[in-house]
Amino acid sequence: MEPSSASLDRLGRQIAFIVEVDKLKEIFRQTLVINSRRQENDAEHSWHLCLVVITLAEYANDPDLDVLRVLKMLILHDIVEIDAGDTFAYDTVGMSDQHEREARAADRLFGLLPDDQAADFRALWDEFEERATAEAKFAAACDRFQPMLLNLNTEGASWRKHGITKPQVVARNQHVAEGSQAMWERISALLDEAVANGLLPAQAPAK
Amino acid sequence: MEPSSASLDRLGRQIAFIVEVDKLKEIFRQTLVINSRRQENDAEHSWHLCLVVITLAEYANDPDLDVLRVLKMLILHDIVEIDAGDTFAYDTVGMSDQHEREARAADRLFGLLPDDQAADFRALWDEFEERATAEAKFAAACDRFQPMLLNLNTEGASWRKHGITKPQVVARNQHVAEGSQAMWERISALLDEAVANGLLPAQAPAK
Ligand SMILES: [Ca+2]
Repeated sequence: MEPSSASLDRLGRQIAFIVEVDKLKEIFRQTLVINSRRQENDAEHSWHLCLVVITLAEYANDPDLDVLRVLKMLILHDIVEIDAGDTFAYDTVGMSDQHEREARAADRLFGLLPDDQAADFRALWDEFEERATAEAKFAAACDRFQPMLLNLNTEGASWRKHGITKPQVVARNQHVAEGSQAMWERISALLDEAVANGLLPAQAPAK
Repeated sequence: MEPSSASLDRLGRQIAFIVEVDKLKEIFRQTLVINSRRQENDAEHSWHLCLVVITLAEYANDPDLDVLRVLKMLILHDIVEIDAGDTFAYDTVGMSDQHEREARAADRLFGLLPDDQAADFRALWDEFEERATAEAKFAAACDRFQPMLLNLNTEGASWRKHGITKPQVVARNQHVAEGSQAMWERISALLDEAVANGLLPAQAPAK
């Protein structure tokens, strides 16, 4: 049994949070890592998104992007999945109550922190979820761009496993363009190649 | 066989880099993740360090810390291990040629990028390695603080496996204080507790 965080000092609460979110390394996603083809976990995914940000920030639609805020959002964005689990991007049933489940998780997890920091981190997560600011739009673009890249480099493994077609990929991911027109154009071209190479069906088979 | 990066445009080279460093998810460390007790990999570790930075930046010795530069260093700091492998913090033989092996890896991996960005990322990695700036000292402090936290929360698993004693832990990690005196004081107190609880020998057994 862990001590209640109320009995801890400021640094103690922060350390309790850092220890608790170690669990992000145990939340597995549908996407496969490229070499060993095992499922990727949320912690690895979050690191990879940070790398995408610092590598591709020059392509953000907003030339005055606050890169630090984008990184903070992405470091934190999936922590709620420790309680709420990963919802597959094409799981429309799971998505119906996803935000509610994740908001409860945010209350518990950020609540481990001192109040001022809990409020800061919660505001970053809310900003990411609302996708209204330039920073949130670019963060969301990276969060959609990276799984497509992994799919393209694993012969479309998670698309094929779930029978996902190109129109579904486009519908789910086209908001990449709101964060980065250039990244959307490139990934669209790569999706067309995947269709041409038979990794992604152009449309659902006729019934 | 991948296309030589010379034939790619700027965004193509950047995407090739993002895809190549996916391999960081396959480089395993001596430290165990807390719940499942499997070895942690470098990508997860890098994410966890970023989380430590945004949670504990207020404890940096330098009140004017550039947090964005700290994060960039930590996102990139272990990428060289894709070629050079992880060198255990207490492996003094492996450490003798570690920097040389890692510098070759940096040449190859950052060399996948457009020249200007390769130079930027290499400069960040060099800054981290030299540990001279306030940002590099705080980044290094986080890079030592997090594995100690994991050890303290896995009954000292990687210390015990390798017969590491408290004086070795202190000698290897006391530079945490150069980045954050407060983090060093707290982790020192936690190390004393670990000794009291029998997780970390106070000294090597008499011969
Ligand atoms: Ca997610």
